[in-house]
Amino acid sequence: MAENFATAFHRVAILGTGLIGGSFALALRKHFPEARIIGFDREAVLAEALARNVIHESTTDLATALNGADLVYIALPISTTIELLPEIAKHAAQNALVTDACSTKRAICRAAAQHFHIGAIFLGGHPMAGKETEGVAAADEKLFANAKYVLIEENAETKNNPRVAAFTSLLEKMNGRPTWLDADTHDWAVAIVSHLPQMTAIALAEVIAAEADGEADGLPTSLAGPGVRDSLRLTASPYSIWRDVAFTNSDNLGRALDRLAHAIEQLRTHLTSRDLEKSFAEANLLHKSLKP
Amino acid sequence: MAENFATAFHRVAILGTGLIGGSFALALRKHFPEARIIGFDREAVLAEALARNVIHESTTDLATALNGADLVYIALPISTTIELLPEIAKHAAQNALVTDACSTKRAICRAAAQHFHIGAIFLGGHPMAGKETEGVAAADEKLFANAKYVLIEENAETKNNPRVAAFTSLLEKMNGRPTWLDADTHDWAVAIVSHLPQMTAIALAEVIAAEADGEADGLPTSLAGPGVRDSLRLTASPYSIWRDVAFTNSDNLGRALDRLAHAIEQLRTHLTSRDLEKSFAEANLLHKSLKP
Repeated sequence: MAENFATAFHRVAILGTGLIGGSFALALRKHFPEARIIGFDREAVLAEALARNVIHESTTDLATALNGADLVYIALPISTTIELLPEIAKHAAQNALVTDACSTKRAICRAAAQHFHIGAIFLGGHPMAGKETEGVAAADEKLFANAKYVLIEENAETKNNPRVAAFTSLLEKMNGRPTWLDADTHDWAVAIVSHLPQMTAIALAEVIAAEADGEADGLPTSLAGPGVRDSLRLTASPYSIWRDVAFTNSDNLGRALDRLAHAIEQLRTHLTSRDLEKSFAEANLLHKSLKP
Repeated sequence: MAENFATAFHRVAILGTGLIGGSFALALRKHFPEARIIGFDREAVLAEALARNVIHESTTDLATALNGADLVYIALPISTTIELLPEIAKHAAQNALVTDACSTKRAICRAAAQHFHIGAIFLGGHPMAGKETEGVAAADEKLFANAKYVLIEENAETKNNPRVAAFTSLLEKMNGRPTWLDADTHDWAVAIVSHLPQMTAIALAEVIAAEADGEADGLPTSLAGPGVRDSLRLTASPYSIWRDVAFTNSDNLGRALDRLAHAIEQLRTHLTSRDLEKSFAEANLLHKSLKP
């Protein structure tokens, strides 16, 4: 029911007009050309977003961005989001839906619960889409298409709120796939399928780098083929994002890393035994089950 | 000096006509159409290799394959190669160069040194090219092009042997990049840049599979994106290959796995500290240094 949008959201404030905020803006402009989009970010980022026709207006003043916006889309780093939430709650319009796109959800939703009481309502979200490339230059109106978009169900009433329902319709119109989870379940699941693979790539790279001993052109890296390059692709993702992720999901991620260290120690003891076959079979089965 | 080939190799026996043996045969046919190629493998594999015009003749009898061949290219599993080396040494023509394409080199070269004394000579080799897809159907005349091809230098005289020099020229004609290493150095380097990434993918898959608890359609795997799929791509590689690799390189691989487990434990303790930034910077630097 995308027509809900027309009655719900007329003015959209996008806080953070990088890859995710920019992609959301482009998808909005494609599917809801009547919406007016105002961007909030640093001056240079806004200039580029305006030049690329990603947003209609820009401001570096948060209250100005929020003024009259009935949809507030936060696509800022986790720590910045948590820092700004009190001010966002204070200045957001009474009828606004405020939602975020941060990649961990417990810390954000806890902070939001402290500051959003009456008027504007908060909905935690996480588009399961991204790229290693940051910035509005990489923004893509199809970034969310055919990707799950996790929304956080705080309680039984969350889904029934008309503004939430309108936002869900909007995501569906963008060909996103809204998926309801609670914040605990979300943070556990992404620790396993997103944050653990990231940290695994970092640890693998550290071991290889230590063996290479600073000799970039030498062995063993000079024998590296496409397999290890794929295994290390995630290391191109910037620390600035992962610092906050690790900080706000250190319990789940810590447990996952413990299990990985244990799995590696097991594998080490099985290198010359038939138990290795079981590990390969299990891994292969999992890989096949992952949908492209 | 590709013209060496004409004087050195007229009849080529390819033992194992799968992905690697088949790709070598196709590259031979392209660059040296005058060479006569006889394949040795199981009946069904040979039938497909003949049907695809990969080889000229076929036999399931090793002595027949070797009879009159001045180049013997072994592209069999490591364990099969070690098993057959005594018979290959016995039946190979006096003027033959026997070379292999196995992905560990110490065990093969040790076995070869026991059996090759006079007449036929043995040269250990390892093309740093491959695919997850096995079999002659995936064979590609360009598989070795622009890829390093490790050759094992047993002693100072290895490179000067005319048959070895002719084989090196042949690889260069195929646009392969011959790279001389000793077997110890080779096995250490591939443990780090090839075998360790493989085992890392297996261990990561095991942890994810354990969390999924057999529910292929459920969490956390239903939130998996392209990042984790890339991280697990190597798990599609068959156990049959890795069993022999792990067995013949368990010392190097074991040490590498110890270091990885240690790096993961370190990373775990640094999740909420600035030390994490150092790990990311180091990993990113390594990733950038890997040539495509």
